[in-house]
Amino acid sequence: MPAKRATETPTLLERRKAVLGPHSPLFYDEPLELVSGKGVWLKSAAGERYLDAYNNVPHVGHGHPKVATAIAQQMRKLAINTRYLNNRVVDYAEALLAEFHASLDRVAFVNSGSEANELAIRVARFHSGNTGIIMSDFSYHGTTLTLAQLTTGLTTSEKRGRNIRTIRIPDATGLNKTQAKQLLKDSLAEVDAAIASLQKAGFGVAATILDPLFSTEGLVVPPAGYIEGLVKRVHKAGGLYVADEVQSGFGRIGRLMWGHELFDAVPDIVTMGKPMGNGHPIGAAVMRADLLEPFGAANMYFNTFAGNPVSSAAGHAVLQVMEEEGLRARATELGAHLQTELTRELEGNPRIDGGARGDGLFAGMRFVDPETGKPDAATTKQVVEAMYKDHVLISRIGRDDNVLKVRPPLAVERKDIDLLIDKLTKVIRGLDA
Amino acid sequence: MPAKRATETPTLLERRKAVLGPHSPLFYDEPLELVSGKGVWLKSAAGERYLDAYNNVPHVGHGHPKVATAIAQQMRKLAINTRYLNNRVVDYAEALLAEFHASLDRVAFVNSGSEANELAIRVARFHSGNTGIIMSDFSYHGTTLTLAQLTTGLTTSEKRGRNIRTIRIPDATGLNKTQAKQLLKDSLAEVDAAIASLQKAGFGVAATILDPLFSTEGLVVPPAGYIEGLVKRVHKAGGLYVADEVQSGFGRIGRLMWGHELFDAVPDIVTMGKPMGNGHPIGAAVMRADLLEPFGAANMYFNTFAGNPVSSAAGHAVLQVMEEEGLRARATELGAHLQTELTRELEGNPRIDGGARGDGLFAGMRFVDPETGKPDAATTKQVVEAMYKDHVLISRIGRDDNVLKVRPPLAVERKDIDLLIDKLTKVIRGLDA
Repeated sequence: MPAKRATETPTLLERRKAVLGPHSPLFYDEPLELVSGKGVWLKSAAGERYLDAYNNVPHVGHGHPKVATAIAQQMRKLAINTRYLNNRVVDYAEALLAEFHASLDRVAFVNSGSEANELAIRVARFHSGNTGIIMSDFSYHGTTLTLAQLTTGLTTSEKRGRNIRTIRIPDATGLNKTQAKQLLKDSLAEVDAAIASLQKAGFGVAATILDPLFSTEGLVVPPAGYIEGLVKRVHKAGGLYVADEVQSGFGRIGRLMWGHELFDAVPDIVTMGKPMGNGHPIGAAVMRADLLEPFGAANMYFNTFAGNPVSSAAGHAVLQVMEEEGLRARATELGAHLQTELTRELEGNPRIDGGARGDGLFAGMRFVDPETGKPDAATTKQVVEAMYKDHVLISRIGRDDNVLKVRPPLAVERKDIDLLIDKLTKVIRGLDA
Repeated sequence: MPAKRATETPTLLERRKAVLGPHSPLFYDEPLELVSGKGVWLKSAAGERYLDAYNNVPHVGHGHPKVATAIAQQMRKLAINTRYLNNRVVDYAEALLAEFHASLDRVAFVNSGSEANELAIRVARFHSGNTGIIMSDFSYHGTTLTLAQLTTGLTTSEKRGRNIRTIRIPDATGLNKTQAKQLLKDSLAEVDAAIASLQKAGFGVAATILDPLFSTEGLVVPPAGYIEGLVKRVHKAGGLYVADEVQSGFGRIGRLMWGHELFDAVPDIVTMGKPMGNGHPIGAAVMRADLLEPFGAANMYFNTFAGNPVSSAAGHAVLQVMEEEGLRARATELGAHLQTELTRELEGNPRIDGGARGDGLFAGMRFVDPETGKPDAATTKQVVEAMYKDHVLISRIGRDDNVLKVRPPLAVERKDIDLLIDKLTKVIRGLDA
């Protein structure tokens, strides 16, 4: 006789659905309950260990003692808003700005990437007197109404804002020089058309907002000169270039601190969030003084939690750990190793289009149908789920949901990367076994 | 010969201006540098002690060890997003929802009051199919573009949204029954006109968003039946009632956990932030399942930091400390004591209009010119600055900047309140000395 359902203790998943609702998103067909983490290793409620090759928020490693201690000590000492003077926020702001081009000399702290992009849009509208935004046609920049209205990379119920024009970020991966040149020309013509359309409609151009790694798009690599040409055109129309470094920033690509340094165009505003506080909610918009100061004079902008000494201590500790542990050098070395080995191991595999893509410790592979060459989302999902069963956490991205997302915390070590490569190549080879 | 300016070490204020800009707001003519806090007492860089009778973020007291320890332990253990299962967020969600009317049975966690109000507006637009918002004509609900477009209580550069209608929240303080009845009738007619205007313009009504204590407005107390009548009208037009409890919630008014419980109208959505994590950045929107679930089905709403185990531990610890230390009972008792004593001490003072106002541990007094009876912002500022010199932190609010804002952490003790009353009455009496 089966046990009566009503008398059983509800599972954690059932309890969760009853308070957060059934639509609060969860990874995997069978969700994973986690209890603790150390470095890149997570422990589940069932006592299993998982290699985290996905999460970029625990940037310097899960449970890093230096960040945790900085937060703990400051939380015991003082958490207060920035309407009082406190040295922690100033020390951190100086350290953070030192990581940027000299023209980017002011920082406004916020609590998330969404809040950072909201502020960037407010400043861009104020500065330009325009409202039009030029966006990638498959991107994501946050959870608020304004950001939902310009979201193209996931489902939102909001209609696209009438002031939004979308462009296709051109992918030059695998093209020869002539092809790349033609793609550049066509793509910049698309930008020109978007600008003209915004101007004709009376919105003008306030900004373009770009993730320099084009992560949501599937790690697209535009032809040389594209970003520079796009930014030049946006500037000419009076708009700003906002680089959203929520995914690409803080040394994710190793040899560079910021994704926007991949291109010969200095952003007007740089927004950041996820890895900034190793899990503590913090974000920022870094910009030029000539943008922030007129905005600040015309707006009483005050963000209660932002820049408090605890958030500042968390962010500052992350920068210090990156430095002390040489995490950028490690991301450069291990990222190159990861990309090279994956490409080598899977060379000639008809399911993989063009080897590993990405930069630094952000790698992807495009899965295609071996017969038709078309994007293969089903197999990509199968690989992610198989890796999960094999105790490695990765995910997938891209317009066609067919690009693996391999993005471990920067605390990853060579033996972890080798384990990841080993398991991933076995799973992929096993697809045809 | 004067020292050469350029060779001097810059002060903290100068360093701050160079990174956060000169418009990042600071309290007081001479800003206060704080280094630590314990309970309701803050210590300055100059070694002085200040009684904090203003800040509501350190809700259970500055540096409360239980909250700090909960954060420290969980930060060492695991900070992960809610796409993995974790018991901390579920435990906290259950504890938080237990504090609400049974119909409010779902919670969406966010990182700030701004993010909570953004989500409330998205849900209200989705649910109603409308975009119109009815707002107090002197209010503040957050820092984002959409919230700036409906801000009426401080300076923003954004034009008022065409979908916004403002209403004057009627103040029944000091009115007799007949006057209050007339005010109620006139004010509800204003609501009717706002709704008709939104409908005529094609926006319809998505929501009204109200701070139930009307703090920004200056602790206005509407006539009996006003909120109920407003909500009834908004509901009839298809819109939602959003109670913004960022200032009024979490037992601030002692005998009630939430400001909206002052009225006989259950909100459709309750938003919260400031005191929720005792300084840790956290917010939430609590709502009915029939609002969150259709929205969740139509929108991939995922907030990276929100609901992580550290934020959940912080929020949960605040609820536990409130219970263990009887802080609501204390707010009731000391709030009544504060209001009674201030009113008694200053009775007949021609500078004070109507004694102390407010509820629980949120008290205010309206300063007027003794000759003309007009609002007296200058004197109010003078009192705030004099109290600061006397080592007590308070502030001011209201349409005319003439209402003292006395709002200590709930950890305040009777001797602190007595000290506050003593100093404040002396400062006020001293105005005419």
